[in-house]
Amino acid sequence: MYTFREKLRLAQNSNASWVCVGLDPVLDRLPASLGKSDKPLLEFCNTIVDNTHDVVSAYKPNLAFWLAQGSSGVDQLQRLIEHIPDDIPVILDGKFGDVGHTAELYALAAYGQLGADAVTANPYLGVDAISPFVAVAQHGVFLLARTSNPSAPDMQNLALGDMQIYKYAAKLAAGWDLEYSGTCGVVVGATYPGELAQIRSIAPDLPFLIPGIGAQGGDLRAAVEHGSTADGIGPIINSSRGIIYASSGSDFAAAAREAALTLRDRINECREEAG
Amino acid sequence: MYTFREKLRLAQNSNASWVCVGLDPVLDRLPASLGKSDKPLLEFCNTIVDNTHDVVSAYKPNLAFWLAQGSSGVDQLQRLIEHIPDDIPVILDGKFGDVGHTAELYALAAYGQLGADAVTANPYLGVDAISPFVAVAQHGVFLLARTSNPSAPDMQNLALGDMQIYKYAAKLAAGWDLEYSGTCGVVVGATYPGELAQIRSIAPDLPFLIPGIGAQGGDLRAAVEHGSTADGIGPIINSSRGIIYASSGSDFAAAAREAALTLRDRINECREEAG
Repeated sequence: MYTFREKLRLAQNSNASWVCVGLDPVLDRLPASLGKSDKPLLEFCNTIVDNTHDVVSAYKPNLAFWLAQGSSGVDQLQRLIEHIPDDIPVILDGKFGDVGHTAELYALAAYGQLGADAVTANPYLGVDAISPFVAVAQHGVFLLARTSNPSAPDMQNLALGDMQIYKYAAKLAAGWDLEYSGTCGVVVGATYPGELAQIRSIAPDLPFLIPGIGAQGGDLRAAVEHGSTADGIGPIINSSRGIIYASSGSDFAAAAREAALTLRDRINECREEAG
Repeated sequence: MYTFREKLRLAQNSNASWVCVGLDPVLDRLPASLGKSDKPLLEFCNTIVDNTHDVVSAYKPNLAFWLAQGSSGVDQLQRLIEHIPDDIPVILDGKFGDVGHTAELYALAAYGQLGADAVTANPYLGVDAISPFVAVAQHGVFLLARTSNPSAPDMQNLALGDMQIYKYAAKLAAGWDLEYSGTCGVVVGATYPGELAQIRSIAPDLPFLIPGIGAQGGDLRAAVEHGSTADGIGPIINSSRGIIYASSGSDFAAAAREAALTLRDRINECREEAG
């Protein structure tokens, strides 16, 4: 069985793609052409997956968008992850952060019930909150370092001597990655491109999950330049709304594929320019 | 309609209790006497609620324990919150922390779908991640300051000049409480009793949610001494396993009531001693 990191590398190579699609559907933004369904989020996202799985290297459903539809949403999320082809890794974006015995339950939810390959997690509670997610080597965790939202600096830019907290989070992740055999990555918002280089120097071996491309802005060139690990795992460059809502018409699936392809090609052009 | 803070104060006064019961059921720890059920977590917790609601002032289900049973668990959680009497506030312990438009979806999940009165949240993403939870004055959010787990110091005790991060989190919460009209509180683990006094001096007006009583250890006397706000809202002193698993036999409901009463009385004795 492949580890998460191996599975990611294989998907990146076979699809020549660093694109990750954020599967974050909102009920009132679904195309009218979908018609009535008792599982509308699932139907929409399954169609997106069917039309993009050969041009992306990861999917990232955010738990909030599914939980907002209660138990039905969680059921649809589970079915969606079942539907995603086995060779494309799934990162459940839950930004989990709870004490050890509770984190074990979240790991059971994410991996056992929902079938994700990896998760995102928050560094605030320390390693207890992370270890259950990486206790099994086939899984992975992406620790929040620098997030892409406007108020990220409220805490993340505070200075610990000469090191801001977001850098310290990356340093913690690098340490935990040694402790837990290559299972950790970091989340670095592309809305702060200068910081990608800084975090890369702190954590040369850790895969980057980079949100903030597309609807949130962000600098693709910096993501490509500093995004890869020392041994060549590319960044996971996420776009949600820019792909899944590329069209609100009946052509939404073709438009999503086109948007994913365009992003893949832009990334690959940047890669060529960067040599 | 009462605000969360008013509802909490009324429940504390009418039941003469600062006890909060953590509704964190694990399938393989449920009493055999419950028999077979397709909603075992719900059946167990409904019975706990029926036998404790007149001696507590809040319930705190942790999302992880319900999500670990997938969509069925989330359905059971929703039904449980419906079952809890309206005059006892429910804090959904989700330790949420995501960017603004995603936090809106978590607020919809917590308040709209699940029916909670308040939530717990993580300070790492700043105010964007908090504001959707307090956009409506009847709700409340408890921001993590100092958590009760062994690795909490990994990040929370780092020093920003002369102020550790957990104190800075309390300071952020106090500021957001002014901005959002008395809707914020803080989570302070009772496993670090000296820190209760420090955080109280930083945030004199914010309700405290204090986990770590019972199974995790903790100092009840410090919780009582420093737990109340300047205007007399008592701390929310949470016990989960010490109450819900007080007996594993068929007497589990009576034992849970007895454990809740014992904790209430111990707290009230400390209150009398403290004057």
